[in-house]
Amino acid sequence: MSSASLQPDSSSDATNGAVTKLFAVLLAGEYSAFYRLIEESKMAPDVASQIAIARMAASEIHHFDVLAAQVSARGLDPTASVERYRSVFDQYHSATTPKTWYESLVKAYVGDGLAADFYTELAGVLPGDAQTVIAQVMSQTSSSHFAREQVTAAVTRDPSLKSPLTLWGRRLLGEAITHAQWVLAAEEEVTDLLFAEAASLQGVASFFDAIAAEHAKRMSDLGLG
Amino acid sequence: MSSASLQPDSSSDATNGAVTKLFAVLLAGEYSAFYRLIEESKMAPDVASQIAIARMAASEIHHFDVLAAQVSARGLDPTASVERYRSVFDQYHSATTPKTWYESLVKAYVGDGLAADFYTELAGVLPGDAQTVIAQVMSQTSSSHFAREQVTAAVTRDPSLKSPLTLWGRRLLGEAITHAQWVLAAEEEVTDLLFAEAASLQGVASFFDAIAAEHAKRMSDLGLG
Repeated sequence: MSSASLQPDSSSDATNGAVTKLFAVLLAGEYSAFYRLIEESKMAPDVASQIAIARMAASEIHHFDVLAAQVSARGLDPTASVERYRSVFDQYHSATTPKTWYESLVKAYVGDGLAADFYTELAGVLPGDAQTVIAQVMSQTSSSHFAREQVTAAVTRDPSLKSPLTLWGRRLLGEAITHAQWVLAAEEEVTDLLFAEAASLQGVASFFDAIAAEHAKRMSDLGLG
Repeated sequence: MSSASLQPDSSSDATNGAVTKLFAVLLAGEYSAFYRLIEESKMAPDVASQIAIARMAASEIHHFDVLAAQVSARGLDPTASVERYRSVFDQYHSATTPKTWYESLVKAYVGDGLAADFYTELAGVLPGDAQTVIAQVMSQTSSSHFAREQVTAAVTRDPSLKSPLTLWGRRLLGEAITHAQWVLAAEEEVTDLLFAEAASLQGVASFFDAIAAEHAKRMSDLGLG
């Protein structure tokens, strides 16, 4: 199934170790996202929405399988990796539990986009073999297009939804950045891997600025913000 | 994504109509199975089991996508098809709601096997193009192997589980056959398609006998029955 090489390349041991740990963290994120997406789809008002959510969830499992193969090949156990790193993702999801179907849709769309941006930013700073893995994870994009259509239609129909959903979108970004920073603070090797060239704190700030800029565009696509 | 032809072949209109309806029914079954599997996985005691369930669920969505492409190409709306045919599957699942994790595992393993047998029996009586679709649905087998390992280990460890899980397995088969017969009774075209050559009631009886025989082997694989 995997077309990317399962063998780490000739990068230094420290780099390989950090990439492995990064993949283990991302693996836990995909696991957590799968079950949360299904949980949060319970408010879906119709079968078409449930089908769309199921397809997004299936694509998380595709990402999970690509990362799990890498984590195994690099000597870690995927199950143990999920157990070790899932808590920060579970906390993010607990802090952003949607109260309405539209909040769920905004979260699905924004979360999907943030994950994609995050993977894209990563791809720029990782060694070549790890970039290939990220490209493979990204090749099956989960279609959150349906979420955008539903949200823009709803906001057009009922403009009073706009202000609370805009605040909700800001909160999602804030919590995502906060929780990502917790990971970086706890996993120094990963931080060094990602920001070695960018001289620490300045690099971290630019990274999150880039993600915030993409988020703003995405909110605008939704007719929000 | 789909390598099978999306165009119905030159079979008669009646046959094409019946095949389309059959695919629409199967589509609803995959939809219902996806959400039930996730719901019933809540009793899973550990991350490894949750991962295995998520993979099974993702493979239901693969089956769903193959069938949805066919249903669309044959002129029906997949969402409307799910709405129209899901109730019998939802009723089957309501009648077989597991009360323990081991009941969930037996249901996952037995249900996966029954579905595979059903698809295999179908493939023998359908026109060539429809056989190709069924083969494509079956090509991504959901791995319910983990369920077998867990159940056999549990029954070995605690033989008192054997008798209630054996009864549970019999009940799953009985409910599956009952609900399948409801579909056949309601959808005469599908019944004619499947059993035209086998002279009605006798053909139906042989069909379910074949499925019951496979079920008995499967229960024996689980250390049950």
